[in-house]
Amino acid sequence: MKALVLEKQLDLDVRDYPIHETVGADDVRIQIKSCGICGSDVHYYLKGNIGNFVVKEPMILGHEASGIVTEVGSNVTHLRVGDRVCMEPGIPDLHSRETLSGNYNIDPAVRFWATPPIHGCCRENVVHPAMFTFRIPDNMSYDEGAMIEPLSIGMEAAKRARIQPGDTALVNGAGTIGIMTAISALAGGCSTVYIADIKQKKLDIAATYDGIVAINTKGKDVVKEIMDRTEGMGVQHVFECSGFEGMFPHIFEAAAPGANVVLIGIPGNPVPIDINFLQQRGITIKTIFRYVNEYPASIAQVGSGKIDVKRLISKVYPFEKSVEAYEYAAAGHEDVVKVMIRLGE
Amino acid sequence: MKALVLEKQLDLDVRDYPIHETVGADDVRIQIKSCGICGSDVHYYLKGNIGNFVVKEPMILGHEASGIVTEVGSNVTHLRVGDRVCMEPGIPDLHSRETLSGNYNIDPAVRFWATPPIHGCCRENVVHPAMFTFRIPDNMSYDEGAMIEPLSIGMEAAKRARIQPGDTALVNGAGTIGIMTAISALAGGCSTVYIADIKQKKLDIAATYDGIVAINTKGKDVVKEIMDRTEGMGVQHVFECSGFEGMFPHIFEAAAPGANVVLIGIPGNPVPIDINFLQQRGITIKTIFRYVNEYPASIAQVGSGKIDVKRLISKVYPFEKSVEAYEYAAAGHEDVVKVMIRLGE
Amino acid sequence: MKALVLEKQLDLDVRDYPIHETVGADDVRIQIKSCGICGSDVHYYLKGNIGNFVVKEPMILGHEASGIVTEVGSNVTHLRVGDRVCMEPGIPDLHSRETLSGNYNIDPAVRFWATPPIHGCCRENVVHPAMFTFRIPDNMSYDEGAMIEPLSIGMEAAKRARIQPGDTALVNGAGTIGIMTAISALAGGCSTVYIADIKQKKLDIAATYDGIVAINTKGKDVVKEIMDRTEGMGVQHVFECSGFEGMFPHIFEAAAPGANVVLIGIPGNPVPIDINFLQQRGITIKTIFRYVNEYPASIAQVGSGKIDVKRLISKVYPFEKSVEAYEYAAAGHEDVVKVMIRLGE
Amino acid sequence: MKALVLEKQLDLDVRDYPIHETVGADDVRIQIKSCGICGSDVHYYLKGNIGNFVVKEPMILGHEASGIVTEVGSNVTHLRVGDRVCMEPGIPDLHSRETLSGNYNIDPAVRFWATPPIHGCCRENVVHPAMFTFRIPDNMSYDEGAMIEPLSIGMEAAKRARIQPGDTALVNGAGTIGIMTAISALAGGCSTVYIADIKQKKLDIAATYDGIVAINTKGKDVVKEIMDRTEGMGVQHVFECSGFEGMFPHIFEAAAPGANVVLIGIPGNPVPIDINFLQQRGITIKTIFRYVNEYPASIAQVGSGKIDVKRLISKVYPFEKSVEAYEYAAAGHEDVVKVMIRLGE
Repeated sequence: MKALVLEKQLDLDVRDYPIHETVGADDVRIQIKSCGICGSDVHYYLKGNIGNFVVKEPMILGHEASGIVTEVGSNVTHLRVGDRVCMEPGIPDLHSRETLSGNYNIDPAVRFWATPPIHGCCRENVVHPAMFTFRIPDNMSYDEGAMIEPLSIGMEAAKRARIQPGDTALVNGAGTIGIMTAISALAGGCSTVYIADIKQKKLDIAATYDGIVAINTKGKDVVKEIMDRTEGMGVQHVFECSGFEGMFPHIFEAAAPGANVVLIGIPGNPVPIDINFLQQRGITIKTIFRYVNEYPASIAQVGSGKIDVKRLISKVYPFEKSVEAYEYAAAGHEDVVKVMIRLGE
Repeated sequence: MKALVLEKQLDLDVRDYPIHETVGADDVRIQIKSCGICGSDVHYYLKGNIGNFVVKEPMILGHEASGIVTEVGSNVTHLRVGDRVCMEPGIPDLHSRETLSGNYNIDPAVRFWATPPIHGCCRENVVHPAMFTFRIPDNMSYDEGAMIEPLSIGMEAAKRARIQPGDTALVNGAGTIGIMTAISALAGGCSTVYIADIKQKKLDIAATYDGIVAINTKGKDVVKEIMDRTEGMGVQHVFECSGFEGMFPHIFEAAAPGANVVLIGIPGNPVPIDINFLQQRGITIKTIFRYVNEYPASIAQVGSGKIDVKRLISKVYPFEKSVEAYEYAAAGHEDVVKVMIRLGE
Repeated sequence: MKALVLEKQLDLDVRDYPIHETVGADDVRIQIKSCGICGSDVHYYLKGNIGNFVVKEPMILGHEASGIVTEVGSNVTHLRVGDRVCMEPGIPDLHSRETLSGNYNIDPAVRFWATPPIHGCCRENVVHPAMFTFRIPDNMSYDEGAMIEPLSIGMEAAKRARIQPGDTALVNGAGTIGIMTAISALAGGCSTVYIADIKQKKLDIAATYDGIVAINTKGKDVVKEIMDRTEGMGVQHVFECSGFEGMFPHIFEAAAPGANVVLIGIPGNPVPIDINFLQQRGITIKTIFRYVNEYPASIAQVGSGKIDVKRLISKVYPFEKSVEAYEYAAAGHEDVVKVMIRLGE
Repeated sequence: MKALVLEKQLDLDVRDYPIHETVGADDVRIQIKSCGICGSDVHYYLKGNIGNFVVKEPMILGHEASGIVTEVGSNVTHLRVGDRVCMEPGIPDLHSRETLSGNYNIDPAVRFWATPPIHGCCRENVVHPAMFTFRIPDNMSYDEGAMIEPLSIGMEAAKRARIQPGDTALVNGAGTIGIMTAISALAGGCSTVYIADIKQKKLDIAATYDGIVAINTKGKDVVKEIMDRTEGMGVQHVFECSGFEGMFPHIFEAAAPGANVVLIGIPGNPVPIDINFLQQRGITIKTIFRYVNEYPASIAQVGSGKIDVKRLISKVYPFEKSVEAYEYAAAGHEDVVKVMIRLGE
């Protein structure tokens, strides 16, 4: 079938790729309709690896996808041929202790699309477990369906923060995940979400959502900015999405007594943390790794109209122009959130 | 001072009432601006009692109020003369075990406005502890400030349900508290809130909020209605706001496996509950009594524009027409949510 | 193989039964060593059914079992031939939403040993999923291993109560599950567990555990007894294990403000509950259905010596005298907690 | 009255000190019977300060105390003259938002005994709020009553960890707080608590408790030691009580997937933390600052016999030999846990 194949670093191609998957009893086959480009996809394209995960053999890219069911395994009852769906890209070991206890995201055996040596799904069709394939409502486009994946990271963060309705939050970093987290926290109960970055164009996009207040921290003290807006109390939740080590002392200082600090961004190095400060302020640190049981909730938030992801799709390319799409995504335009590849209408 | 005095059952009057309160070190004096009429106020007016609470002496009515600070005690640092505020009507014993553990709502010593023999606040001014007096933002009217009290009951329910972002909910009963709960659950993270009642006009008001889906259950099976809309799964949260015993089996059957059922309405008699059904479905029952630490959150939700309470103020009367206002409220018009008394602009 | 077969109501036999199971890739075969008799086993023996579950074909009894691994599937890494183990008797659908979210106990597709038409395990050997087969430590006997199943119900109740260290509890009902719950709550953090029943011999057994205080409620007011012992405050957790409808008002009244009431016993009929009382006292009701992810914890509590289940094994019979064992168990002696069948040493 | 006065660094004396306190309506007066010596007391004695808290005027030492009520304020209902009691040493502002929300431990206005400029209670008598004065049972000695204070720190850690019954834990550091935490976690539901230190004598004391397993980490890899004892899984809770920066990477590596790491020890400097490691393992970090609402629970655990603190009282001195007691405590003997001063029998 046709697939978007990363042959090796900087060598990307849409070409025929011999892959033959059969539909098991608990599986479905999905014809792919839309596939978003993630920062990790771009990173494999540009660098050929992410940390220890190295592209040694040609690998199909893409893990943010939606499509239509074309074949259904014999045990599957909740899906039918013709269902419009989106898919969780990670398949855990169903027999592991983590999976059984409801935490399959940290199951070390997870097989995740487009993480070497597992192929991704930017291709004509894919076979996938039905249990990780979710129907999308009629009013949701395939492009929106493909957005469920990155949204689910923000949704996981909002869930784990255990927001109490009316809380306020600070999201540090207005990249794709930062914005996903901000809109998830807002729809998830926050009264106001502050988002901080130094890139004004990214902040401008975030600020189009009612309830998100953008703070350009260039030359400014983010702690003071937050305290000025919260009567000196700080926010109940901080979501760190930048991975930028230099922001760490500030994110804790902006937190109210008893607050949660949720770490989503991944700093490259260990970060010095002032533990006594955390203790005196009663702060809890939570960490996020992918998402667990979030797809139904993410689909519900978009399907009900509570979260709008459409405005975050910056540009759409047809499948045959996938390489061009990647080059555009790789250019790092400040006003680009998500680049989408369409494999069919 | 002028006050709205319930002399005895069905005998209500705006008149001079001799009440002299001094501002203690931790208190403020508030000139009342708006005061809503609650179902309990109407009940005292019509019946002269609520259960064991009997009006034996003349009592000032009203506990949903806002106003402006006119005098500040010596220990008070967070409020100043001229601050626009709303007030929690209950004052717990600060030395009780319940208060100290963060549950002052169930402190048996709470003194609550307009609950015999405690006077309410539909009067020119009132002295109140500063810690239960909350500044409202400039963009919030006094009428909205007075709505914070009934909203806080819905907010408490939404908080205690521990909604996960994207959950769905059913609110049973579209009276004032039902609507307050529905908008709180929606703003508090739910993707969709179903609200069920047999009064279409009340449902119509609820349905003006995006994300609230009204179900008229007259001659219909509410469980079937919910299952049809949730792919047979049921809702993650049921909020029972009707107090109507006959609905109880249904509210449990509409709940998804592992759901919360939150009881806010107060049935007059013990209700038969099928415990084995709850066990097999893994249901938890939570109960709500007033609210605790909800005012800042409620003010934040209204102040940020996330919750609109303005449309729920059905009619406004000047202070001198308070008796007329009570008669209007007592008439039980189906399209009336809240009647407001204005004591000043 | 030899098996304890319930031919039909009151017709029980140890006989050859033709059953041929093959070990799948994720399975193990276990030679059974000990198998306890549960109240449900006795009920099937005496009545031929439990509610809708009717014994229509001969069925092997027993679901509280331990044994030794004799064969291991190709995917299994955590078990080896010769491992001493005990087994969870229920096998959920690994693909269901309940299982994936960590609540496999309420998966409606669970297949549970000795629940018609699923055979139990009081037989020479059984094939079982390795993921529901747990190694027991060297210091734990097979009899103790078989006790892990009933203990896990008490452990599940103690877990879901979310005991805070030093809390007090009341267990209502001193039958097997009542005692299991009491020792689980005690080991799980309670400072003192009160257990109430009218059968003195059962109370005497419970009271052999330090920290469990037995209250014979014959002719006594259990609420008064609890209040006298808790300075009038009540207990933070009530565990209802009797299923006796008449106790319900009292279990709520014995609960402290903000307490949990955990329902484990199964009343035959709907129980009238005074909701307003629950609301004013801030009570939460939790329900228990079997257990989820409790085996490792139960094994740890027994293996470390924190929970002693040995004293609850009232009598041991060899496999060939299983029918006699059932008759003894069915006699309902007040001083009998658990009757154990040994299929090998 | 006679009091143990720290005149200035290294200048300590039992002498007459003019202090006149009156019993307010919500207060009681307590004649002090026992007063423990805390590490902070010794630090003030030796150094004259702890961080910013500097002894500028003579200050009475001691905050771990018990005694007998000799005078009762007019509002007090739960205490009488003659009651044997122990006291929480910190008095928060009852009007603060932190206190009202159940977190008075992080109220910045807390006034804490023997923290400059607040006097401690190693003196003949003290006036204290009745709400922070707790009756101890008849079977508890005054010395044990004074131990409730340090125990409450361990109890707070065990509570906030949200131990599930049967969990395992690692306590890092076998000083006084380490041991208090270990016995609290054990009584609070853990099946086994590992405690790690390099001082064998301290470990020997900890290991006298059934269920506590001591690991001398001198020249050993604590992670390997834990993994060997937990089938490679790690512990569900790590309690860091050493404050030793060098242990930090290890405490995270010893944690099971999804574990809590609770930080009680106070490192002198910011500690580098590998956030990506935490994320992949799904770890949550909680922090402890003193305790909140723990006294009743701590008293219950000791009073019921579940926690034995007697063996941790290494040596007792009469009041007049207080200086000698401090010198003994300051000597840092490895086998000394708590030195107690007795002001009366």
